[in-house]
Amino acid sequence: VSNAGGLGTLAGGYLSPEVLRAEIRRTRALTDKPFAVNLFVPTAVHDPNLSAALDALGPLRTELGLPPAPVITSWAEDFDAQLAVVEDEHVPIFSFTFGIPDAEALTRLHDAATITIGTATNVDEALALEDAGVDVVCAQGAEAGGHHGTWAGDPWRSLIGTVALVPMVCDAVHLPVIAAGGIMDGRGVAAALCLGAGAAQLGTAFMLTPEAGTAAPHRRAMRTARATDTALTSHVTGRLARGIHNRLMEELQHVEVPPYPVMNALTTDLRRTAAQRDDGELMSLWCGQGAPLARDGSAQEVVGALMANLVAVVQDLYASSADNEAGT
Amino acid sequence: VSNAGGLGTLAGGYLSPEVLRAEIRRTRALTDKPFAVNLFVPTAVHDPNLSAALDALGPLRTELGLPPAPVITSWAEDFDAQLAVVEDEHVPIFSFTFGIPDAEALTRLHDAATITIGTATNVDEALALEDAGVDVVCAQGAEAGGHHGTWAGDPWRSLIGTVALVPMVCDAVHLPVIAAGGIMDGRGVAAALCLGAGAAQLGTAFMLTPEAGTAAPHRRAMRTARATDTALTSHVTGRLARGIHNRLMEELQHVEVPPYPVMNALTTDLRRTAAQRDDGELMSLWCGQGAPLARDGSAQEVVGALMANLVAVVQDLYASSADNEAGT
Repeated sequence: VSNAGGLGTLAGGYLSPEVLRAEIRRTRALTDKPFAVNLFVPTAVHDPNLSAALDALGPLRTELGLPPAPVITSWAEDFDAQLAVVEDEHVPIFSFTFGIPDAEALTRLHDAATITIGTATNVDEALALEDAGVDVVCAQGAEAGGHHGTWAGDPWRSLIGTVALVPMVCDAVHLPVIAAGGIMDGRGVAAALCLGAGAAQLGTAFMLTPEAGTAAPHRRAMRTARATDTALTSHVTGRLARGIHNRLMEELQHVEVPPYPVMNALTTDLRRTAAQRDDGELMSLWCGQGAPLARDGSAQEVVGALMANLVAVVQDLYASSADNEAGT
Repeated sequence: VSNAGGLGTLAGGYLSPEVLRAEIRRTRALTDKPFAVNLFVPTAVHDPNLSAALDALGPLRTELGLPPAPVITSWAEDFDAQLAVVEDEHVPIFSFTFGIPDAEALTRLHDAATITIGTATNVDEALALEDAGVDVVCAQGAEAGGHHGTWAGDPWRSLIGTVALVPMVCDAVHLPVIAAGGIMDGRGVAAALCLGAGAAQLGTAFMLTPEAGTAAPHRRAMRTARATDTALTSHVTGRLARGIHNRLMEELQHVEVPPYPVMNALTTDLRRTAAQRDDGELMSLWCGQGAPLARDGSAQEVVGALMANLVAVVQDLYASSADNEAGT
């Protein structure tokens, strides 16, 4: 993506510090262009009650040939250790979600000339990011796939569509805004720019590229998905997320689950095993509402098509606007 | 709105044929420009069970000094009689939601050169409208306020954000598409055009104008609302709708209610009385997620500001695109 003229992002949230470092170096070997690393700001969890979740997961684990309960040594990777790698490797752009790193960390990143991008799903979060001295706000609309980043306010009430969220965030903060959620091609990027964003962030649009780590059953599900096939659940990982509705969502729908990252850790090996066994019903099929618009082709081709489409959309819009002005 | 250069729509759904006729004539007296009339296509309801709803509404009715149960002579206005008025008055543009009028009615409208606009909240509905011979599809995104028009498919799954829905509908049908949902100003209209729509439909953007029938407590609630203050409920009218969260939504949240239009009829006098008593907690506060962007000023001023803003947005976008092309 970076080589094609976009800003590629390395998804570091679930990588150990060692693997993260290796991936950053591998990225540097592949491009001279800027790239970003994304991490998940940790949320404190005290004394989670796992019993209902383990009861519900047990039969599904047995079905996949897994032991009754997962072996878990920690609920999540050590954020401070991951961040130390980002700093140490002088990553040019650091994006994060699920909260704000502490003031000390932000100061260190700022002193190292690292550009920081924080995620907001509502206006309060955007204002908090600005107050904290973050450089750029990524406004994540309700259309987005995977986890929704809400950390201040009710996640369900923070499901604000991109068309409504982006102008409000742009009016509220003085920072550059990146629009995310449901943007799939040049039409969506042009729309994001009209709404006041300086850039657009696309995830689902790249999920069918050979470069993406999308598992085979996940790709199959996306190829036939309609926009009405995605659903929201907070029961698979303990955090609100959007993906193609499947049996795993259904089975966990009414279970009282511990919060993220605990529930995420409890379901990780189950979902991974299901993916390896080509079982799309017991893994997460995260993707956004724009999934039916995802293209095949390399990441470079997706970026190229998007750029060409963007230019055409802008030129058409300007031409029809000029026609209107001329009264034709 | 029509006089200012937009296409004004007369909301006819809840008007008796006689009042609808009078309103159409009053509209004609006020403008020489085209205007539309909107009606609700009826949904058949057989033998609704009212008991749980009446039990839940009883105490609220008592609180407002109303008799224990409403006096209801019919669940909804007679659609055929309303449509006869639309035809008889040679209304230039007829828009509808909640379904498709029967083939005979569409043929009569078509023969009378009336332009028809149908509402779709998902791609299947858009295709069905095209198949039925409707002239224009209005794609209603999840951000929209008031009733969501879903009539084919699960309403909750059909909550597709405007940024994702509009391009998919444009790709699926050969008809002109109007984008609706979360569009509040020239930025949103420009975005809609980028997404492939030929026009944008705005409701919430006009709700604070003096011309709007918005009750005083509804206006007050909108003036302080944040985007996170709207919620979705299907328990106030029996149909999924978005508005500012209040006590009425809360009280009915877990009640098993009959479908629309029955539940709508059961709560009509309660909501009207609450509005008259300046009680924003027991009425419907329908509005879209863009509510915080609603402007004061006349309908003409809102249209004028929107048009000027639209031109500026398109010019800025074209200029920055040209700068990028030139490598500056």
